[in-house]
Amino acid sequence: MTNKATRPTDAMIGQDLWNIQLDEQGQLKHFLTIEGLGTNILNQILDTAESFAGINESVKKVPLLRGKTIVNLFFEASTRTRTTFELAAKRLSADVLNMNISTSATSKGESLLDTLRNIEAMQTDMFIVRHADSGTAHFIANHVAPHIRVLNAGDGSHAHPTQAMLDMFTIRRNKGADFGSLRVAIVGDIKHSRVARSQIHALNTLNTGEVRIVAPRTLIPKDVESMGVTVFHDLAQGIKDADVVIMLRLQKERMQGALLPSEQEYFQLYGLTEERLRLAKPDAIVMHPGPINRGVEIDSSVADGPQSVILSQVTYGIAVRMAVMSMTLGSNMGSNMGSNTGSNAVQHNQEKK
Amino acid sequence: MTNKATRPTDAMIGQDLWNIQLDEQGQLKHFLTIEGLGTNILNQILDTAESFAGINESVKKVPLLRGKTIVNLFFEASTRTRTTFELAAKRLSADVLNMNISTSATSKGESLLDTLRNIEAMQTDMFIVRHADSGTAHFIANHVAPHIRVLNAGDGSHAHPTQAMLDMFTIRRNKGADFGSLRVAIVGDIKHSRVARSQIHALNTLNTGEVRIVAPRTLIPKDVESMGVTVFHDLAQGIKDADVVIMLRLQKERMQGALLPSEQEYFQLYGLTEERLRLAKPDAIVMHPGPINRGVEIDSSVADGPQSVILSQVTYGIAVRMAVMSMTLGSNMGSNMGSNTGSNAVQHNQEKK
Amino acid sequence: MTNKATRPTDAMIGQDLWNIQLDEQGQLKHFLTIEGLGTNILNQILDTAESFAGINESVKKVPLLRGKTIVNLFFEASTRTRTTFELAAKRLSADVLNMNISTSATSKGESLLDTLRNIEAMQTDMFIVRHADSGTAHFIANHVAPHIRVLNAGDGSHAHPTQAMLDMFTIRRNKGADFGSLRVAIVGDIKHSRVARSQIHALNTLNTGEVRIVAPRTLIPKDVESMGVTVFHDLAQGIKDADVVIMLRLQKERMQGALLPSEQEYFQLYGLTEERLRLAKPDAIVMHPGPINRGVEIDSSVADGPQSVILSQVTYGIAVRMAVMSMTLGSNMGSNMGSNTGSNAVQHNQEKK
Repeated sequence: MTNKATRPTDAMIGQDLWNIQLDEQGQLKHFLTIEGLGTNILNQILDTAESFAGINESVKKVPLLRGKTIVNLFFEASTRTRTTFELAAKRLSADVLNMNISTSATSKGESLLDTLRNIEAMQTDMFIVRHADSGTAHFIANHVAPHIRVLNAGDGSHAHPTQAMLDMFTIRRNKGADFGSLRVAIVGDIKHSRVARSQIHALNTLNTGEVRIVAPRTLIPKDVESMGVTVFHDLAQGIKDADVVIMLRLQKERMQGALLPSEQEYFQLYGLTEERLRLAKPDAIVMHPGPINRGVEIDSSVADGPQSVILSQVTYGIAVRMAVMSMTLGSNMGSNMGSNTGSNAVQHNQEKK
Repeated sequence: MTNKATRPTDAMIGQDLWNIQLDEQGQLKHFLTIEGLGTNILNQILDTAESFAGINESVKKVPLLRGKTIVNLFFEASTRTRTTFELAAKRLSADVLNMNISTSATSKGESLLDTLRNIEAMQTDMFIVRHADSGTAHFIANHVAPHIRVLNAGDGSHAHPTQAMLDMFTIRRNKGADFGSLRVAIVGDIKHSRVARSQIHALNTLNTGEVRIVAPRTLIPKDVESMGVTVFHDLAQGIKDADVVIMLRLQKERMQGALLPSEQEYFQLYGLTEERLRLAKPDAIVMHPGPINRGVEIDSSVADGPQSVILSQVTYGIAVRMAVMSMTLGSNMGSNMGSNTGSNAVQHNQEKK
Repeated sequence: MTNKATRPTDAMIGQDLWNIQLDEQGQLKHFLTIEGLGTNILNQILDTAESFAGINESVKKVPLLRGKTIVNLFFEASTRTRTTFELAAKRLSADVLNMNISTSATSKGESLLDTLRNIEAMQTDMFIVRHADSGTAHFIANHVAPHIRVLNAGDGSHAHPTQAMLDMFTIRRNKGADFGSLRVAIVGDIKHSRVARSQIHALNTLNTGEVRIVAPRTLIPKDVESMGVTVFHDLAQGIKDADVVIMLRLQKERMQGALLPSEQEYFQLYGLTEERLRLAKPDAIVMHPGPINRGVEIDSSVADGPQSVILSQVTYGIAVRMAVMSMTLGSNMGSNMGSNTGSNAVQHNQEKK
């Protein structure tokens, strides 16, 4: 079996994701993408995160997932994202296992599915998956044992749902829960950004008043019309009267692909300066998923200025990840007995494809 | 001092191991090899593992080794084995320290013994040792401070005793405790396999009815006669009426050494297919230490089929490692006071050689 | 902002460190250097370490820092030092995050300060900093959020204060608390040694009777006169009647810089042999920060001999690090609420420079 062949294409993902992410009672089971999840689930995540955000400030550690084993399955390196998931897991008192898969068993010629089977046979409970290929978290969720939970920590240019939810949490903390009254502008490389894609879905699901995307033509995705957003190519127009301005990180690799002019030219056209920020509402907040490129997509005076909530996003990221972890594993409490110790090793939906 | 010079050769190992592995009361102190251990010790490991296998399915975490520090001393990389030891330690509430020694202090020119002295001076309690050279775990056990316990996680082509014991546990769970009534066939590269060597010793110690090895002449060790096994060169004959078929991983490196023909040819002669498996008893179980080479030593339909217990082996591996850890450290509880804090730094049996 | 520009030079460090290291009540807040700390603080560290040294021998684990997150920020690799800090943190029940910064976010072009901001926004509590550049820990302490504590685990050739304090602890345990009656000789490359520099400051602060440095002229620092030490170029004279002989590790890199002759010649002139050790007091102790170069700066018979306390230093290192961790974080207990979750991301003393 070649794994490539059974992995879904970008186009395929999303069609049946909603019925994978929820269990029979409609509770969150995996967290792979915002698509297909209802307003109620997103609000449940935000409310649960609210309770952890309070805990974080004083006690920080709760025994909610004591005895659970959470595995960081990172197929592409990301110290920052891995760290926030690791901290979230530890603050829930779970044990964490960091596995850098690229340098591990698969290099011995073992298939991805065999690696997964082995890790789940170690009586683990949750896989945090990061992979350069779109659809990998979806593929894994489709093939794990019933008691395993899968969280998508970023797959290709497809989705980064916990990042989107920490952004929603940051907006709600600063602007209140009435998303209907808000105008949100997302600025930068929308086309290649899994963050932007997940943000747009989350903002729409939460019934945001207006969602704008601001980018040069070369960085707008083709299916933009179906996304329920207003498209701007001019930054000044795009952020005018916005309540929230979300800047995306400029992937410098794109430069070489001739999709973009120089950094200087990009900053001149799409960099957020104090002057331009004055076009947004006076109390607008500025967000960025990090790490920021100072002087490329954002000026230092804005990044460090009074309207920036960039570091709050990092802080809230842990509360949101704690929320998603406890919600998905909570629906599983006390039910993983004997799941993987029969004589027939393969009892999962491996043959579904 | 050159460490090489004091390390035992394969031939030397085993002669005095039994008096290193047990303490004065005959309790397990180190776990380096199956050789020299009695049936009672092996059964004690299996019984203790049984208690942890039950725990694993529900609570998973017990405070038995809380406050103990267990060090993974891996001189050769092995994510899979390291991970199961790490999980076993964490589920016993011990603290785990992962040390990749090749990239560490020894590269500064420090000798192996000095590195060991330093790690034990950190008031650690157990070393899990993996090394490409046969006899390293034995060498280390011979030189550590009295309160340190040493577990062999694989040394050269010598031994891999926890793997053998998890295999015994898997057999007992599936076939009952009466090993005398069982016919077990081990198929593959016996010659270079520390797993096979330890399995044969364990099966014999547990008085298994018949132990067969099945391999081409080039992959049979010279001392096979003394091992108490029946030798087969034909797979069909070798697995006929077997209760347990253990397939070994084919180390592809061996191909280049001209010891083996192509993968295809090997599969044709020694690969386990559904058809061939029908020659074994109808309720025979199929085992493999992993990671498997699908289509080389085993067909996917067998690996994923109803008789495969390959993933159960992984699960049981944690219970067995918990058993060995708690047995060896248990014989040490409350007795490691002041062991390493005198003014004379070297009070161990370093000069024994 | 370029970080280089704002980092202090060696000459600048120390001038205002004392007012960074202590809080308003005069309690230890950061631990960056011995300079500027009073005898009372050093004795408080030693007394606190004494209490942990006792704990280590039996229970080993105390819940003092449960819920705290301690980050190992190692910009230069050091398995040994990182490990002792990690063990100290775990024995205080803190969560530990190991971050190898060189291979991480800064390689994406993120500035050091942005990396720090992000890690502190994850609601971490303490940074253990190791860096090849003198002054980095000082720079970081000057720029972190008010609730973060910074410990210097070695910066360039400037300071290694926890090493110095574990050395003082070892002396006190072996020779008693009356440093005034002691003659201490430090032998080797004083010029490039952050360890020696911190030892000299600590010994002077504790009012040691006589502090001697013994080295070839090329390895004596220029400002040696101001250090309150007696300088010797001859080993025999330097260690005569000493109570404590501290050997420094010879950095072999120095050889190539033509500062030193061959290893053999160095050993002949400055290597500590049993014969030479007889010149010191009969009950003199021999120390070394490790890892030792046998036959270069110290003979094996001395390193492993009855007067060596080299491995005790390693053991005591954990107690001393536990002491400094609990003292600095203790002054912060229950006070880190809401410190980093406002809408203005940068509220620290970043602009102080």
